[in-house]
Amino acid sequence: MLKLLTFVKNCKEGVLRATPKKPRETRRKKILQTALEILPQRGFDGITLESIADALGYTKPAIYYYFKNKDDLVCSLVTDYLKDAHQAICAITDGNGSPKERLIRIIHFYVDRNCEQRGYFTIDHHLGGVLRKMPHTAEADNLRKLSLEIPSRLIKLINEGIQLGEFRDEDPAVLGSLIFSLLGGVLTHMEMPSLASLGVEGLKQRVCDFALKGIVV
Amino acid sequence: MLKLLTFVKNCKEGVLRATPKKPRETRRKKILQTALEILPQRGFDGITLESIADALGYTKPAIYYYFKNKDDLVCSLVTDYLKDAHQAICAITDGNGSPKERLIRIIHFYVDRNCEQRGYFTIDHHLGGVLRKMPHTAEADNLRKLSLEIPSRLIKLINEGIQLGEFRDEDPAVLGSLIFSLLGGVLTHMEMPSLASLGVEGLKQRVCDFALKGIVV
Repeated sequence: MLKLLTFVKNCKEGVLRATPKKPRETRRKKILQTALEILPQRGFDGITLESIADALGYTKPAIYYYFKNKDDLVCSLVTDYLKDAHQAICAITDGNGSPKERLIRIIHFYVDRNCEQRGYFTIDHHLGGVLRKMPHTAEADNLRKLSLEIPSRLIKLINEGIQLGEFRDEDPAVLGSLIFSLLGGVLTHMEMPSLASLGVEGLKQRVCDFALKGIVV
Repeated sequence: MLKLLTFVKNCKEGVLRATPKKPRETRRKKILQTALEILPQRGFDGITLESIADALGYTKPAIYYYFKNKDDLVCSLVTDYLKDAHQAICAITDGNGSPKERLIRIIHFYVDRNCEQRGYFTIDHHLGGVLRKMPHTAEADNLRKLSLEIPSRLIKLINEGIQLGEFRDEDPAVLGSLIFSLLGGVLTHMEMPSLASLGVEGLKQRVCDFALKGIVV
């Protein structure tokens, strides 16, 4: 009887599912990781919970155990992406070094991350559209707010450089847009033979040189 | 009897369809123009012959009279786009002026065209993917060849500038990729408030300044 009661209790608490919390989180992360891997080929329109299940060799219900639907999965991908990027950009902008040095670190961060995982670029490239499509829940509104904080941080950094006489005295939002346009364009076309031949370190250096010539006094 | 014979002859020659050749070409162009207008919202995946018929207030068969299927329409859009762009770029690169002056004209051409019709940007932005998906017919192969001639022209122009000591002595393909990355990024984000506030002329000037600082000696 005690055994039966323990069994019922364990079922309710989910204890019998492998081992409780950690493997669940590991499996959830593995699903998100796989989604990131297939995202560049399929895009947000083409990705499905079924395609992720196929890639992992899971059944479809095994994915539904972790994510309600595709929207839930996309929301998780975007949340993780934005939180990581926000944390990294804040650490750089609040960190040591001249505005120029910190700007270089921001460019390095984006090139490195994109080279490490192309799916991050797909998220970044479609972020505006994905956020616009999200419903007006508190969670989605928070994500939209978070996404606006990253360019604000960049503009603040450029403004700091202008005040110190390091950067050209122009609208910092325009300078920021030009730098991010260059960076976004390069990350879009980094598979082109001319850019691919530079390698990651060469690409980082070349983009920084080009961007800084356009902004430094 | 003569009337009947004339009627049959006219039907065979298509004379009874409004007036023969010119209106047909006009209607075909109108369909392509409408496709260009709805392309930015729907993208290549979302555009259908039905959506074009709806936008024009035509029936679906009226569109099928001009285009076999969606692939045929996309092929026509891409052909027109590439032929126009190729002709314009050749006219600029073969024209008068220093390499720097001609490079400025190329940037102006792309910004102007994109501001005039956002659909051109959608085609340009997805050109690689669309061309890769096309079958290996002589027509598609010609389009792929044509698409490669535009960057070759740009690289040749940059090389001319390097030889004349006007541009930095670096791999002209890398310099060209950086300029087109900047331009592509700006055209992607031109609806951003900071860039939109510049206006078309301001945007052209700002992109040229930024690009030339990165390339001119």
